[in-house]
Amino acid sequence: MTEVLNKEEQEKELLKLLQSQNMDVFREKFLDWHLYEQGQFYLSLDKKERHLMYAYLSPKEMADMLDVIEEDHEGLTDYITEMSPNYVVAILENMYTDNAVDILSQLEEETARTYLDRMKPETSVNMKRLLHYEDKTAGSIMATEYVSIVANQTVRSALTLLKKKAQEAEIIYYVYVVSLTNQLVGVISLRDLIVSDDDMMIEEMMGERVISVGVNEDQEEVAKMIRDYDFLAIPVVDDNNHLLGIITVDDIIDVIDDEAASDYSGLAGVDVEATTESSFQAALKRLPWLVTLLFLGMSTASLISHYEVLISEASILAVFISLITGTAGNAGTQSLAVAVRKLAVSDDKELNFFSLIMSEILTGIITGAVTGVVIFLVVGFWKQNFPLGMVIGIAMLCAITIANLAGSLIPILMEKIGFDPAVASGPFITTLSDLTSVLIYFNIAGLFMPLIVGSV
Amino acid sequence: MTEVLNKEEQEKELLKLLQSQNMDVFREKFLDWHLYEQGQFYLSLDKKERHLMYAYLSPKEMADMLDVIEEDHEGLTDYITEMSPNYVVAILENMYTDNAVDILSQLEEETARTYLDRMKPETSVNMKRLLHYEDKTAGSIMATEYVSIVANQTVRSALTLLKKKAQEAEIIYYVYVVSLTNQLVGVISLRDLIVSDDDMMIEEMMGERVISVGVNEDQEEVAKMIRDYDFLAIPVVDDNNHLLGIITVDDIIDVIDDEAASDYSGLAGVDVEATTESSFQAALKRLPWLVTLLFLGMSTASLISHYEVLISEASILAVFISLITGTAGNAGTQSLAVAVRKLAVSDDKELNFFSLIMSEILTGIITGAVTGVVIFLVVGFWKQNFPLGMVIGIAMLCAITIANLAGSLIPILMEKIGFDPAVASGPFITTLSDLTSVLIYFNIAGLFMPLIVGSV
Repeated sequence: MTEVLNKEEQEKELLKLLQSQNMDVFREKFLDWHLYEQGQFYLSLDKKERHLMYAYLSPKEMADMLDVIEEDHEGLTDYITEMSPNYVVAILENMYTDNAVDILSQLEEETARTYLDRMKPETSVNMKRLLHYEDKTAGSIMATEYVSIVANQTVRSALTLLKKKAQEAEIIYYVYVVSLTNQLVGVISLRDLIVSDDDMMIEEMMGERVISVGVNEDQEEVAKMIRDYDFLAIPVVDDNNHLLGIITVDDIIDVIDDEAASDYSGLAGVDVEATTESSFQAALKRLPWLVTLLFLGMSTASLISHYEVLISEASILAVFISLITGTAGNAGTQSLAVAVRKLAVSDDKELNFFSLIMSEILTGIITGAVTGVVIFLVVGFWKQNFPLGMVIGIAMLCAITIANLAGSLIPILMEKIGFDPAVASGPFITTLSDLTSVLIYFNIAGLFMPLIVGSV
Repeated sequence: MTEVLNKEEQEKELLKLLQSQNMDVFREKFLDWHLYEQGQFYLSLDKKERHLMYAYLSPKEMADMLDVIEEDHEGLTDYITEMSPNYVVAILENMYTDNAVDILSQLEEETARTYLDRMKPETSVNMKRLLHYEDKTAGSIMATEYVSIVANQTVRSALTLLKKKAQEAEIIYYVYVVSLTNQLVGVISLRDLIVSDDDMMIEEMMGERVISVGVNEDQEEVAKMIRDYDFLAIPVVDDNNHLLGIITVDDIIDVIDDEAASDYSGLAGVDVEATTESSFQAALKRLPWLVTLLFLGMSTASLISHYEVLISEASILAVFISLITGTAGNAGTQSLAVAVRKLAVSDDKELNFFSLIMSEILTGIITGAVTGVVIFLVVGFWKQNFPLGMVIGIAMLCAITIANLAGSLIPILMEKIGFDPAVASGPFITTLSDLTSVLIYFNIAGLFMPLIVGSV
């Protein structure tokens, strides 16, 4: 038993070995680490140290490590371009196609082409084909390292074949059965292969109801299927059911993470994923949205401006503007979040848009009525002005109901016209509901002006 | 080749077979379906039809189906209690322990105990132990159906053992190597077992750096590890490194989904997961939050009330209240979302709270300055009142900076005192920032009153 070092000490030891250029011991210790940990170590190095690693590690060793870290690290392209082109090409050839294509697609087109031109012809053709699929479709995230066999053979011969292909395949836990023209006809799990009698024929035991996804399917749909069916991978086919690739569950976790982050970003009106940017870059990204909303807010201001006469008659009206707009905005944000989530988790045909909107309106009426009564009592007693309390209460009820309508209707309309409903942001709904709330408030106040002023 | 029916026709056919009590043909067709599809069919039935299914399907067949659908379906407890107790017990014994325990934990305690008392003693003891782990820990989501072997045997004997255990294990793609006292000492993937020479010794080829999680680890941490390491499963150990169970990737997908939904709910101030509730139930859940914020909003109103004298002197001041509070609220929501996300994805030790807050303040100053200049020009030209424009511009700059400070500081404080920062909701930040914005606005306006009124 060797002495046990904790993680930090091990990292320090490894760094010392690298810096003192003790290649053999470094390799022995480093390659013993898990690929993810290798990757974290690599990412913590400076440029000079990274170049030592390029000299010490084979392209295959580098490729295995990059396969595990590439999904979570956007700055990887800078690292790729600092390596010698031959090294990069050998790495990309050794990576799983989905990950290699992911890196290629992030590089500048010309750089990517240089690498592609140096690859083995069959690899290059394969990757160019994969690069062609539209972003966020099944085709764009699939790998081509699957195991496929034909049906008329025994379990024994299938297992022999699997042994040969096992090193290269991204996942070996499903074996896909194809026709002579590569059409997908069945699937067997490795578990079934292992427990079955060696002399059994594949065609007798394979599952014939294969669940697959089309190559142009949206990645979010693919994620939903893998999650529902509890799959480790799902095959991707073209329109004629030819097997093109597989999508594995680790890629799907990244899709689910990305989609969640984008829903979250949508609700806040800001991209929360860009975590490494400076304050200046962050400000530049947030400003377009803030300024757009500022101009929408200007229409609210200009609307209030129309009612200045009312305000100068009863300046107390101004006191409650922000309370009504704020509360309606809060209610609208709740409706928005519920509607966006329902749109995300339901199949379109299952979801009744009309009943979703009606239910949000009804929720708005109930919450609006309760909030309205509360504010009627508070304002009535506080300002000893019950007509004013009534005006604010009624305005609250109407403003909340309209905000709930807007919060549910807008994402549904966006879905209908083909946009992602998640980009309907909370700030947009609140700013829009400011406008309607002010309109409602002053119109109701206008009706009861004599009563309000009389009580001041 | 039989005639090809589409999904909907198949469902109708199956339903007809069930209703006409044609058991044999029903079973043949139904069991040919994928477990998830079986589950969807079962969930679409009425009570009478479900009872036919209980008569037609063995507890094992029912258990396999429930294993796939249980995670996504909360109403399952109602279905469980309508079955005969003996049938339920047999189903639970046949399900993977993590799923069975999940169902038991959702039942009323007394009902759960009835079932536990009827189980085989060893199953019952095992499940009681699992029920004991705190919610949302590794222990609460682990299964005990893993494959473990000892080190001093050959690949051949390990594969023979695996064949025997394969049917029962939840996942067979990792084989865990344990000492005689069940301490976790190594891991081998099925892939390595398959490609290795049959006479090789397990101890020579096993990975000795086993990544595992403690039984009390938070499930979110477990999810992060499975995602980072691209694992299909991770072993769970106690403080003395004894192997207790495994957590599989399909359970982790559900954890990631749940956590994303709860972050999203937090930002909107509403639980977006409860999708089956009535408008009345929804209103009841949203009201506490809305009314709390209403009272916070009342302090803003009462603050404005203090400045009524200013407003009655220059009612134009009232016109811009909602613009300033709205824009600051939007900026604060952006800061909040970025801070919550950074807290969620980073390790605590990596994240410098001070620099995060400073960076958000700086972003606030930049966006505030740009927004301030825009509004200065717009108001100056629109109202021909540049002093007013200046007041609003400066107020905007200060209000946005403070809103960004609040948006980043509050989730960090919540994390520090041990709360989930994700519950710091957008509505709370906007309502709070209304208060500070109004305070800033009227104080600045007060300073420049003579200039503003002079220009009216």
